[in-house]
Amino acid sequence: MAIAQLGLEGVFEEQAIPLPMRRAGMAEWHGDHVRILDRRVLPLTERYVDCYAAADVAVAIKDMVIQGAYSISIAAGYGLALSAPDNSDAGSLSSLQADAEHLIATRPTGLALKRMMLACLNTASEAIDLGKNIREELVALVNQGASALARQGYETGKYACDQIADGASILTHCFPDRSFVYLLLETARRKKSLSVICSETRPYLQGARLSALCSHFIGFPTRVITDGMGGFLMRDGQIDVFITAADRVCMDGTVCNKIGTYQYALAAHANNVPYYTLRQSGPDRESKSEADIKVEYRDGEEIVQFSGVRTAPLGVEGLYPAFDIVPPDLVSRIVTDRGVYSPSRIREYVHTPPSVRDTVV
Amino acid sequence: MAIAQLGLEGVFEEQAIPLPMRRAGMAEWHGDHVRILDRRVLPLTERYVDCYAAADVAVAIKDMVIQGAYSISIAAGYGLALSAPDNSDAGSLSSLQADAEHLIATRPTGLALKRMMLACLNTASEAIDLGKNIREELVALVNQGASALARQGYETGKYACDQIADGASILTHCFPDRSFVYLLLETARRKKSLSVICSETRPYLQGARLSALCSHFIGFPTRVITDGMGGFLMRDGQIDVFITAADRVCMDGTVCNKIGTYQYALAAHANNVPYYTLRQSGPDRESKSEADIKVEYRDGEEIVQFSGVRTAPLGVEGLYPAFDIVPPDLVSRIVTDRGVYSPSRIREYVHTPPSVRDTVV
Repeated sequence: MAIAQLGLEGVFEEQAIPLPMRRAGMAEWHGDHVRILDRRVLPLTERYVDCYAAADVAVAIKDMVIQGAYSISIAAGYGLALSAPDNSDAGSLSSLQADAEHLIATRPTGLALKRMMLACLNTASEAIDLGKNIREELVALVNQGASALARQGYETGKYACDQIADGASILTHCFPDRSFVYLLLETARRKKSLSVICSETRPYLQGARLSALCSHFIGFPTRVITDGMGGFLMRDGQIDVFITAADRVCMDGTVCNKIGTYQYALAAHANNVPYYTLRQSGPDRESKSEADIKVEYRDGEEIVQFSGVRTAPLGVEGLYPAFDIVPPDLVSRIVTDRGVYSPSRIREYVHTPPSVRDTVV
Repeated sequence: MAIAQLGLEGVFEEQAIPLPMRRAGMAEWHGDHVRILDRRVLPLTERYVDCYAAADVAVAIKDMVIQGAYSISIAAGYGLALSAPDNSDAGSLSSLQADAEHLIATRPTGLALKRMMLACLNTASEAIDLGKNIREELVALVNQGASALARQGYETGKYACDQIADGASILTHCFPDRSFVYLLLETARRKKSLSVICSETRPYLQGARLSALCSHFIGFPTRVITDGMGGFLMRDGQIDVFITAADRVCMDGTVCNKIGTYQYALAAHANNVPYYTLRQSGPDRESKSEADIKVEYRDGEEIVQFSGVRTAPLGVEGLYPAFDIVPPDLVSRIVTDRGVYSPSRIREYVHTPPSVRDTVV
């Protein structure tokens, strides 16, 4: 079941994939609960959070037990299935709608979560019309979505691999999710070498904890820097490519990604280091430009502490914009499941045949 | 004694000055030992490290008990005095020289430390020639140097204050030392307002711990961000001025400062935010350009942990370049004790009359 859900059967063994990209590393349906790997305590601890209601999943997403736009969408989809009746009761639709809105509100910047919720509500309506079991239909939909995401991510990873020279030194920021992991897996499969520098990405350290874990697991030499160091390394000629994921790409090529990405994109541009954005599902048709993006601010308390230890004096507040906007002129290429685009041509993505036909988000 | 040493008598009461800028907050001579405030555990703990030998002071500097080029030079000067005999014994000179070299090697990038050591060795030679007590002469020299640094820093702070509009929002990185603190004190004295955003500055968090402490103590609204956030805030129009200190300024206007400064200077330049460098003692005459700067790398283990908690997987290394080089075209103004210079004219500093006549470093 796990391999089939993963959708990469025949390419990689489940055990060859780093934990955060296994199905158990995202979110798994367990009949009466959703089991989510707690990414906050990786890499040193492997702990799972069991959620028995959609509200629990909402808390887990809000508290960063799981992160990454696509992984969140899978967890949220199973979360909504927890609210669905184990029958075709039409009366459940309004409460499902309320739970979906609650889940969407946890992380408003990315769009995969919203798309998953809308797809789930459509599926629930259809199940009711056809007298099918709503919960089973939702679980099947999320399984299908997760599988499609894996295959779409792998297509993206292969295109990215084509772009990167053997022996390149790459800088990443935050955790660029499955396209990045599949890029690394594919690079290893093709017996090319890489050295990987992960920017730690305060306050949650996704770079130090997740990217470094995946790169080291796959076997590449992996080093961690703080979020202020990438510019120096680029200026010093130590970086060949800067790579991130994107939480959203606009139709004009604007990239929205983890806070810190803009500074690195500026430094890459100033030092002729190409910046590749991995965005497996292409641009968001509803986002024409950055005017359509509302950057979420998170709780400033998360900034003035580290591992539960307060860092700043009492009375001093933290300020926490969670995402950066990178204008298109700072982006070299946007790598998708349908090919590699310059930012000014990313709108051509929507007219290119899909790589995977059964996507959900 | 403390007030007289401080050198700002009549301007600010000792108690009105934030702890890290009091004499007790740098290094104090206690007859048979040097007492150094442990900046690593600020702001929540006030702890002092007593050093009874030059080698102890060297360890304290290397381990970041004290930081900041000027403060380090004071601690090192007293440290060398610990090695000096309480008489005029000429035989002590060679071991003083060895201890001075050992102290210089602790932090090779800044120059104040080296200058203080050379001044101390000169003073020791003179004391021997004149039959004076070497230790007393060294302590007197360091006291004089500390007092001169305070007055020179205050002149710089006043020039900086002239540049900054009432109500401005300023971004700082690392702890810009006494010129910055005196800028804040002078701004408050002139009854102008400021809001201060401190970039936390991993891995040692000097911004969250020291800059925020000083700004909050003086009474300005103070917020902390991570090192990846300043670019977003500048692009979003939330920053009016970016201010740092400099560990070194070259004669061509190149600035060397804490890692992370370059990325912020790039972002400031891209968003028309002025970047002011505070450098109370002006450019280094021996450094023509960045070719004369050797950036030190510190132990990568400091990157992959926080408060003793490991952040990255075992097997992954940290990479820790400690300083950034900022080319002159990214610097708006260099503020010194002798006035405010554009980077292209900073060499004029050396032909301008000194603000303080008895400087040591």
